[in-house]
Amino acid sequence: MRYELYYWPEIQGRGEFIRLALEEARADYIDVARRAESSGYGVAAMLHLMNDAEVPNAAFAPLVPPFLKHGKLVIAQTANILHYLGPKLGLVPKNETSRLWAHQLQLTISDFLVEIHDTHHPIAGGLYYKDQKPEAKRRTADFIANRMPKYLLYFERILTSNPKGNEYIVGDALSYVDLSLFQIIAGLHYAFPRAMMQQEEDIPELIALHARVSKRPNIARYLKSARRIPFNQYGIFRHYKELDV
Amino acid sequence: MRYELYYWPEIQGRGEFIRLALEEARADYIDVARRAESSGYGVAAMLHLMNDAEVPNAAFAPLVPPFLKHGKLVIAQTANILHYLGPKLGLVPKNETSRLWAHQLQLTISDFLVEIHDTHHPIAGGLYYKDQKPEAKRRTADFIANRMPKYLLYFERILTSNPKGNEYIVGDALSYVDLSLFQIIAGLHYAFPRAMMQQEEDIPELIALHARVSKRPNIARYLKSARRIPFNQYGIFRHYKELDV
Repeated sequence: MRYELYYWPEIQGRGEFIRLALEEARADYIDVARRAESSGYGVAAMLHLMNDAEVPNAAFAPLVPPFLKHGKLVIAQTANILHYLGPKLGLVPKNETSRLWAHQLQLTISDFLVEIHDTHHPIAGGLYYKDQKPEAKRRTADFIANRMPKYLLYFERILTSNPKGNEYIVGDALSYVDLSLFQIIAGLHYAFPRAMMQQEEDIPELIALHARVSKRPNIARYLKSARRIPFNQYGIFRHYKELDV
Repeated sequence: MRYELYYWPEIQGRGEFIRLALEEARADYIDVARRAESSGYGVAAMLHLMNDAEVPNAAFAPLVPPFLKHGKLVIAQTANILHYLGPKLGLVPKNETSRLWAHQLQLTISDFLVEIHDTHHPIAGGLYYKDQKPEAKRRTADFIANRMPKYLLYFERILTSNPKGNEYIVGDALSYVDLSLFQIIAGLHYAFPRAMMQQEEDIPELIALHARVSKRPNIARYLKSARRIPFNQYGIFRHYKELDV
């Protein structure tokens, strides 16, 4: 059964973590909001499902995208979607302990993402960056000095202490968590190239993981395609020179 | 098998969402860090499990508490712990669709909690409130005007559109999500009493849910006990008069 991903069409954002999993697995999916409105999909279809009380699934609509429709099921929250998709796409071991462990790591990635986003929006998501620039500078300085290393060194430690080896973060096969870590490293390189250059030597295994994932055939093909939206100044990862070291 | 909850002993914090579930279910559990060090538990035992490479479970240690130990399993991230405990404590329906839906709601509560915390710490968790007071005022003004109503009205809408009635948020029985919503309403009343007074008339079902949960025998007994840590100025919910309306 075809998956329908609902997410904003102009940014990678949180939707990208789902896209990477679907792409790696070569799943049959539609990126709904990126289709033409004339097809019956498009952004209007997404807003319809979220806001229209007449839609049977509206009661289960999320507060915000991304969400996934699979048959009658509508499910939201990025980590929850990956938790659901993981076994179906072969991107997590099927036993409960491994699934909970992968999900725990993904939820820590979610926490990290909020902090990455809030570097440029420490006061309010509803205000422009230019209206919270001094606060953004203060928050980002702390983020680069304390929070970014804390998260990155945590994942580096998890990776190096994996009893099944350092190639993957969960067990001995690729999981959606590896794909998400790839995206985190890629995004941080875009947003804070100078800070990341200083950080790199402390996280060799994460850097190697990023390189390995980027060369996987399905991911490499996806990254070169028009389906991969370039990083830009509207997403979670933004490059403001004045915020980098 | 006894549950061991690991969380900071002086605050409700994120651990409280787990405590409420364990208390409602009258589960056999130890609040490890609140025990005397002489018992072999205490904060030292928590830090040991998190930081000591010699501990077999250290590889699975979380970035931050709370975490739960159940037999050999160590599991972290509040929503993940509740996802695991839910069926075991009879606090979520057992079918996958309901579990995913409850988990989705809990993850939205997690998002809300981050925003609640960041009202008093918009720049850095590692700095004191007094060192980020102007930023906290700005962030809280936006939180009260925009974010708090957005989340509360969302949960109010979910509650009122529950096809099984308005008594519980998931289906027709108490779930851990109801307990968490109780805690959110209680905490917001403590932190922002004046803003909540203005908000209350728009969220009658949530207010009623809070009252119902507080009167459940196991919860009422817990709230009166010494096991319930009072709200204070070290947790997620803090009352700074100058931040309220």
